[in-house]
Amino acid sequence: MNNPQQRPVITVLTAPDDARPPGLEPLLEMAEVRFAWDVESLRQAMPGTQMMMVTDFRTGVLPGAWELADELKWIHATSAGVDALMFDELINSDVVVTNAQGIFDRTIAEYVLCTILMFNKDFPNSIRLQLRHQWQHRDTERTEGQRVLVVGAGSIGRQIARLTSAIGLEVHGIARRARDSDPDFVAVHDNDALPEQLGLADFVVIAAPLTPATEGMFDAQAFKAMKSSARLINIGRGPIVKTADLVAALQAGEIAGAGLDVFEEEPLPETHPLWDMENVLITAHMAGDFIGWTRALTEQFLENFANWQQARELFNVVDKASGYVPGR
Amino acid sequence: MNNPQQRPVITVLTAPDDARPPGLEPLLEMAEVRFAWDVESLRQAMPGTQMMMVTDFRTGVLPGAWELADELKWIHATSAGVDALMFDELINSDVVVTNAQGIFDRTIAEYVLCTILMFNKDFPNSIRLQLRHQWQHRDTERTEGQRVLVVGAGSIGRQIARLTSAIGLEVHGIARRARDSDPDFVAVHDNDALPEQLGLADFVVIAAPLTPATEGMFDAQAFKAMKSSARLINIGRGPIVKTADLVAALQAGEIAGAGLDVFEEEPLPETHPLWDMENVLITAHMAGDFIGWTRALTEQFLENFANWQQARELFNVVDKASGYVPGR
Repeated sequence: MNNPQQRPVITVLTAPDDARPPGLEPLLEMAEVRFAWDVESLRQAMPGTQMMMVTDFRTGVLPGAWELADELKWIHATSAGVDALMFDELINSDVVVTNAQGIFDRTIAEYVLCTILMFNKDFPNSIRLQLRHQWQHRDTERTEGQRVLVVGAGSIGRQIARLTSAIGLEVHGIARRARDSDPDFVAVHDNDALPEQLGLADFVVIAAPLTPATEGMFDAQAFKAMKSSARLINIGRGPIVKTADLVAALQAGEIAGAGLDVFEEEPLPETHPLWDMENVLITAHMAGDFIGWTRALTEQFLENFANWQQARELFNVVDKASGYVPGR
Repeated sequence: MNNPQQRPVITVLTAPDDARPPGLEPLLEMAEVRFAWDVESLRQAMPGTQMMMVTDFRTGVLPGAWELADELKWIHATSAGVDALMFDELINSDVVVTNAQGIFDRTIAEYVLCTILMFNKDFPNSIRLQLRHQWQHRDTERTEGQRVLVVGAGSIGRQIARLTSAIGLEVHGIARRARDSDPDFVAVHDNDALPEQLGLADFVVIAAPLTPATEGMFDAQAFKAMKSSARLINIGRGPIVKTADLVAALQAGEIAGAGLDVFEEEPLPETHPLWDMENVLITAHMAGDFIGWTRALTEQFLENFANWQQARELFNVVDKASGYVPGR
C-alpha cells in the first residue's frame, strides 16, 4: 500500500480551536506529519497526503479539499461516530475509513448506568433540594428488575447491556437482525419490533450510529409508543431524536424524563426549553470522555498505524455504506 | 411462648406524626392490636402487651414505659439499625429483638452505586451547570477498576459489594474477623487493618451498624488516612462519623468528597456547612426507602409473626450485645 522506503505523509485534521492530539511523538519519527484545521489549511496539506487522522467528530471540511486528495488511502477518525465525516465521494472512493470503536464503550456504559440510577433514586431533585438546604424525604424506585431497551447492539450498546444486566436490569436490544440467543441481551429484536418493545421498556437507550436509517427515528410516534413512566437516554447522536417532538412529549407527560448527552444542535442553545425541565438531565457530549481519552485515542490510532506500516489488516474498518463497523 | 387459645396483645409503636403501617389488616384478625406514639400512650398500651412492632427507628420512648412491660416477649423493629431502640434494661432482659434486615439491602446498594458513578461522572456539577443553562465539556473518571472499601460486611455491606463488583470495581471489606476467601469481597480485613485499607480506597462506604464500637469511628485521623482523591459514602448511621471532623477534612482537601444519607443530627440543620459544599451529596435518610417499603416491612413482620404464632424460630434475631444480626 505504502512504500516503507519513504516516510508516509500524514495529515492530522483537528477542530480550529483544538489542541494537537497528545502522544503523537512516535508518529513524528515515522512519518511526515502535517496539521490542518480548516478548508484552507487542509487544501495545503492534502496533496501527497496518504493517510489522515481526523480528531474533530463534527468536521465538515473534507469535501472542500477532496479534489486535492491525490494519494489518500486511509482516514482514521478518533471518534465512534463518523456521520459528519461521510459524504458521497468518500463513500464511493477506495479510501478506507476506520474509527475509534472500543475506546468509549465502557465509560459510556458507566454513564448510562449512572443516569438510570439517578432517575430511579430521584437524585437530580436531591441536588436541587440541597442547593436550597432542604431536607425532604422521598420514597424512590428500585432499579432491580426494570427493563431496558438498547437501540443499537454495536460495541457501545453491548457494553451498556453488560453493565445494566450485571446489576439486575432486564435488557433487550434492537438491531438489524433479530436473534434469541445473544450473550449480552435477553433478546435482540429487529426494527419492526421497535414500537412494541418501546411500550415495554422503563429505559430506552439510544446507542445507534447516526445514519440515514436512524436520523429522526425518535419522533412523536416513538414517544407515544413509550410508557408514560419511561425515560429516554441518548448517548448516540442528537439527530436520531426529533428534539421538538421530544420536548412536546416531555411537556405532555407522554414520557417521564430524558438523559441527554447529545443534541441536534451542539452546544445546546442557551434558551432551549430542555435546560429548565426538571426531569431532563443534560451533559455536554462528554459521556465517554474519561480522563486520558485523547491519549488513548492516539494510542489506538498508532496501533492501527503499525498495521498499516506492515501491510497488515486494519481493525475498526467502517462499512462506509452503513456508517459503522459491522459486528463480528 | 404464647397461648394460641387467646389472641395475643400487640402494640405498634410509631413516631408521633407517622401513619400507621400499611398492610396490617391480617394482624387485626389474629391479635389485639394497640397503637402508641409517645411515652404516655405507650404506658397505657404496655400492660399485657406480649409483642411490639416498632416502626420509628429514632424512637426513644421505650425506657419510659419499660417498668410496665409485664408480658413483653418480643420486639420487632422495622428498620435495619436498632441503635436508638437499645438500652441496658432491654439488653439485659429476655426480650427478643428482631429487625428488618434484608429489606433495604438492594436499594441501599443501588443508591451507593449511584453516588459512586455520580462522583466519577461529575454529575452534581452537570446538574448545577444545567440550572445555569451552561454547556461545559469536562473529562471525567472511569469507574472500572477503582477500589471500594466497605466498612461493615453485614447483609447491606455484602449487597453493596455484589453490585459494585458486578460493574468492575475492586471491593474490600472491613469486619470483625478477617478472611481471605469471601464470596463477595476480594478480601475482608479486620479493624486493625482499617488505617492501611483507608489509604488504598477510592471510595469508603460506611455500612456498619451504630454501636459503641463504631460510634465516632470516622474522625480526623481516619480522614487523614484516606487518599485526598477518595470519597466517603455513609449509608449507615450519622454518629459513626464525627461531622465536625468531616467538614474540616473536606475543607482542607484531605478527602475529595462525601455522599451522605445519614447525619449526627437529622434533619441536617438548615445552616449546616455541609449543604453548600459542592463535593458533598446530601439525601434525607432515604437511601433504602423504595416505593412500597413500608408495606414490605409489614409483610416481613407478618412472616416472622407467623413463626411466633406457631412457636417456630424467629429470623433476624439481633444479638443485643453487639447491636445487629450476627452473620451466618
